Parts: sequence; C-alpha cells; structure tokens
Amino acid sequence: MKDKYIKVSEGVVPLSSINPNIQKRQRGKRVLHDTETYVQGVLSGDRILLSQAITLLESQKTAHQGMAQAILDACLPHSGKSVRIGITGTPGVGKSSFIEAFGLSLIEQGHKIAILAIDPTSQRSRGSILGDKTRMPELSKHDAAFIRPSAAGKSLGGVARKTRETTLFCEAAGYDIILIETVGVGQSEIAVHSMVDFFLLLLLPGAGDELQGIKRGIVEMADLIAINKADGDRVKLAKQAKRAYQNALHLFPPKSSEWTPQVLTCSALKGEGITDIWRSITEYSELTKKNGYFQGNRKEQAYYWLQEGISQQLIQLFQAHPKVKEALSEMEASVRAGTLSPYRAVEELMSLFQNKK
Amino acid sequence: MKDKYIKVSEGVVPLSSINPNIQKRQRGKRVLHDTETYVQGVLSGDRILLSQAITLLESQKTAHQGMAQAILDACLPHSGKSVRIGITGTPGVGKSSFIEAFGLSLIEQGHKIAILAIDPTSQRSRGSILGDKTRMPELSKHDAAFIRPSAAGKSLGGVARKTRETTLFCEAAGYDIILIETVGVGQSEIAVHSMVDFFLLLLLPGAGDELQGIKRGIVEMADLIAINKADGDRVKLAKQAKRAYQNALHLFPPKSSEWTPQVLTCSALKGEGITDIWRSITEYSELTKKNGYFQGNRKEQAYYWLQEGISQQLIQLFQAHPKVKEALSEMEASVRAGTLSPYRAVEELMSLFQNKK
Repeated sequence: MKDKYIKVSEGVVPLSSINPNIQKRQRGKRVLHDTETYVQGVLSGDRILLSQAITLLESQKTAHQGMAQAILDACLPHSGKSVRIGITGTPGVGKSSFIEAFGLSLIEQGHKIAILAIDPTSQRSRGSILGDKTRMPELSKHDAAFIRPSAAGKSLGGVARKTRETTLFCEAAGYDIILIETVGVGQSEIAVHSMVDFFLLLLLPGAGDELQGIKRGIVEMADLIAINKADGDRVKLAKQAKRAYQNALHLFPPKSSEWTPQVLTCSALKGEGITDIWRSITEYSELTKKNGYFQGNRKEQAYYWLQEGISQQLIQLFQAHPKVKEALSEMEASVRAGTLSPYRAVEELMSLFQNKK
Repeated sequence: MKDKYIKVSEGVVPLSSINPNIQKRQRGKRVLHDTETYVQGVLSGDRILLSQAITLLESQKTAHQGMAQAILDACLPHSGKSVRIGITGTPGVGKSSFIEAFGLSLIEQGHKIAILAIDPTSQRSRGSILGDKTRMPELSKHDAAFIRPSAAGKSLGGVARKTRETTLFCEAAGYDIILIETVGVGQSEIAVHSMVDFFLLLLLPGAGDELQGIKRGIVEMADLIAINKADGDRVKLAKQAKRAYQNALHLFPPKSSEWTPQVLTCSALKGEGITDIWRSITEYSELTKKNGYFQGNRKEQAYYWLQEGISQQLIQLFQAHPKVKEALSEMEASVRAGTLSPYRAVEELMSLFQNKK
C-alpha cells in the first residue's frame, strides 16, 4: 500500500506513522493538524485538541515528539497557574470515590480540574489506575474535569516526564487544579513529589495496618494525611487514627515549606470533610506563596527534571555503547557478588565508553 | 631541584608527588612502599600501613589512586566480615561520648572497632566531626580502636566513596565493627545508609524539639533510636520520648528487612543502656542473616555504588565538554526561571555533548 504524506509544521510525515489514537478520536478523520492548530486548541481549552496534543507527547515517533515539544514551548508561558496536588493511597483506600467527591466539590466552586496518573505498571496491568473512566462516573461527564489515564511507557522516568509535560498542557488549557495520582507502592511517589506543590496521602481508619502496602518515606512526604471512610462504625476508629498520626507527625523534623502537615478525616461516601481538605490546601498555598517556598520549590523542581533528564540520557548513551553493552552485565554480576569493587568496575566501564580500551 | 624517583608496583613516580602526610607518618623517612607491602600491612593489621593506605586512597594523585585501587583489589576477598553501623545525631546529642562508651564496651567484649565519618563539610570547618581525637580520649588510646577523620573532598560522592573503600580496608585489617558517623543535617545520611547494615539515630530526651536540626527522612531510616542522656532529671523525659517514638514508629510501613525498629534509652555518661544497644544490633544481624536480607542488602549496596559511580563519571564527562560548559549555566537559569522546558534544555545540551551541533 502506498503511503500518504501530510504536512506538519516540522515537515512532512507519512500518514501511517500517525498514532491511531489520534485518528480514532478525530471521529474517523485521518488528520494530523499542524503545531499551530494544537497550540491554539490547547490555549482555547479545546478538549479534543488537548487530548491529541497529549497523545503526540506520548508517541514514540520522532516526528510526533518534535511536534509535542514545539507545542510545549508555545504553551510554557501560559502554564504554571495551577495548584498541583499529588495524591496517593493503596487500592482499597477509596481513592476513586475520594477524587470523584473532591473533584465535584471543586467544580462546584468554579474550578477546572485535570486528573492525571503516574503508574509505570499500567502498561502491564492494562490500566490498573485510572484506565477506566467508570471509576469516576460523575466527574468524567463534566466539562470542567479532564481525566487522562497514565501514559504508557517502559521506564518510570519516561512516564513521569510525560505526566509532567501533560500537566503543563493542562495548565495552558485553563485547568487550575491538577491532581496527579499514584498507587503509593513504588518509586512513583518520589517522581510525583518532584512535580507537585502539595502531597496528599489517603489512609484508612486503622492506625498503622493499612500502611502495609505503602512504601516507606511516603508518610514523611505528606503535607496532609486524610483518613478516608470515616463514616458509620468507623468514625471512632478514624478519630483514633487521626490522633495517632498527629502525634507521629509532631515527631518529624519541620518542613522547609514551614507548613505543619495536617491530619483530617473525611468520608467520600457521605461527602463529609471534603471541603476541609481543600481549605487546608488553600492555606498551604497562601502560606508558601507568602514565604516564597511555593515559587522556589517549582524552580528547584524544574532544575531537578533538567538534571534527571541529563542523567537518563547519559545512561542511555552509556548503555548503548557496544563495548559497554558487552561487558556490563558480567561486571554487574561480579560487583553484586562482591568479587569486583564497584569503583574498579566503574573505571573499566568508563574506559570502554571513552574508547580508551 | 632535581626530582627523585622511587619504584612502586605500578611503575616509577616522582618522589615529590608523594603526599606529605604519608611521609610525616613514616617518622621522617621519605618512603612510599610498594603495593604488596601495603597489602601485607593492612592484612596483618598494621595500623601505620593501614593509615598510609587510606591516605593513598584519599590522595588526588593518579599514581596514588592507582596504588590504592590495587591494594583494594587485594583486600576485597578479605573484607566484608564486619557489622557496619551508621550513627547519626546532631551536635549536642552526645555523639562523641556515646561512641566512646559504646566503643570501649565493644572492645571489652573482644571486638576491634573502626570509627569513620562522612562529612563533606569537614574541609571547610577543619574537622568539625572526628577531626580531633580528644573527642574520644580513652578510645583513641586503644589498640583495638582505629579512628579516622572524614576524608576531605569537594563532593559528597567523593567523600562517600572514600569512606566506603576505607571500610573495606579496615575490614581487611581485622576490624569487625565499623562505625560510620554523620552529623545528620545533610545528604550524607543517604550515602551512609547505602553503605551500612544498621542505622542508629541518637536523640535527646525532648520528644520532638531535638529534631529541629535533623533532616527529614532520617527517622524512617533508623533501625534503632537511642535516646541518650537518660540520666538524672532527664530519666522521666527520656521514658516519655521513648514511648512517643515507639508509637510513631508503629505508624511506619514495615521494613523489607523484617526488622521492627527499636527505641531504647541510654546514658553514655553513666554507661547505662549501652550493652542493650549492642544486643539489639546483634539481634538485627541474626534476624537479617537468617532471612537473607543482610547479604542481599550488601549486594544491592555494591550495585548502588556501581550505578552511582557511573552516573557521577558521566556527569563529569558531560560538564567538562567545552560546548556544554559554555551553554550549561545559562540554560539552567532559564529552566529555573520557567522560560525553558527542562526537556528542551536536555535535548539541546545532549546535542552539544554528542557534537551534533
């Protein structure tokens, strides 16, 4: 079959290279717009063009990535005007219903909310997280809510990067609250923590037992612990858990944001305590914008992603070097076995990489 | 002045290149031994040769580093037979007197103990930590104790690497307990955590207030919290703090070592509770050797240092590239200012690094 070519702002790309997702969402029209159309679409809040721009971002094809980066460059000056909230909690904690209740309450107050996810396992588990809009039936119907499942990808770094860029697109499209969700069991939380302003940890009323699945270190990251399902028989238990966590958080060193992490109870089911959580986030924003931490933290985060990006690219270059590739796994095994010093291994591998051997 | 040359196993080096510290410690004799002498010296537990071998490790000179690595290769099969303990606590917590009491108690039980430190600030502060043997007057007199101040160095990575290699030397020299000390206020604890089997946090009886100086995340790293200065009027306060921390630690997710972090009180001044701390460490070793975590963790740590070493070397190569060097600081500033996307910056810098531009 002869390939058809279409013009995009970076040049001409074969039509067959276009991600079928883009085409599908165009209701049958096999069209890839030019960069300017996407930029205008995103900036005017067009949900279909925003979706397609994100699909370009997630595409593995060089032409798409080039377009996505051009769109990003144009969106960058219009981004940043949101509160970015990380939210984590193990399955069973009621994350979906919490986000549904929280999101609807924010929309009622006139906000536009985008819900993204970081979950590098989603490729394997076919969208264990947010892959299904039925998880938030009411919210997904709303025009003021934009729900996007986790970007598929092999590495956490790649998924995280795309989620961060998606955040910028959503901000440029006028969403003033960005919620980034993780399942709380992997390395994802560090990535999320490095791209949000506020970190919210959802727990069950059980004072400790529910932490079995949560990765260590996450409790210390939290700006707010919300004890969900504080309804019916569990109200008393939730209050006990609240007290226990308040005492525990008191034993942590103070945060450089000068914010004292809060512990609140809520019931997504009954819609109770949801507005208190938003009030706490608002207080946090006011405090940290006043003391300069909010702005400073975002600068540090951007710098962090620069450094992370450089490191990742350098490691990829390194691992792709034919001689390094040949020697690497054996050396790694020797280092693990304790028969080769890691520094000697570094020395040898770097010689190979620099073609000194 | 004409340079004199001496033979070392790697070849001939000018005598003037020899670190004056080595010569000083040789009581006036300006001699650099050959690698074999250092290896035999370290393996036989000769303190002077061990000291000199460590000085070679810390030297900036290529010839010295080559020798140090050769000594390390020879020592590697004889290393590993120790318990590596990280110990942290802010100034004022009584770290010196604790280590003195703890060390003397271990020596009494027939152990040989090496005390090292990671403190990248020591170069500036001229040995704020362990730079002075008068901090541990009794211990420093003992033949069974080897005290070595923190390696000077510009970067934490460099200092940490040298401390880890020093650990291997000390193990090969027969020290069966290695204590690595930090001040608990910087990034050093992550480095220490990545080279020890057991992490001990010293606190004062004050339930929270003394955490002001401690970096967040350290409490979660601890395998044991020891509340020091539990004597006189402070006994009651120490007991309260112990209870508070026990409750708090209960709220953390379980460790992959399957070890439940302990909270103990002690008084270095009165020599009370010191043996309980060692008993706890012994229990930890028994548990984690039985469940395989001890050995597995060491393998992971060695692998971590391999990865860390590669990353650091790659970054150095990158930063030394003339075109990257030229562009880097301006790009970093634009990324921080939010006018340039970190990924665009990565792309541009990588093009420069690969000479594509």
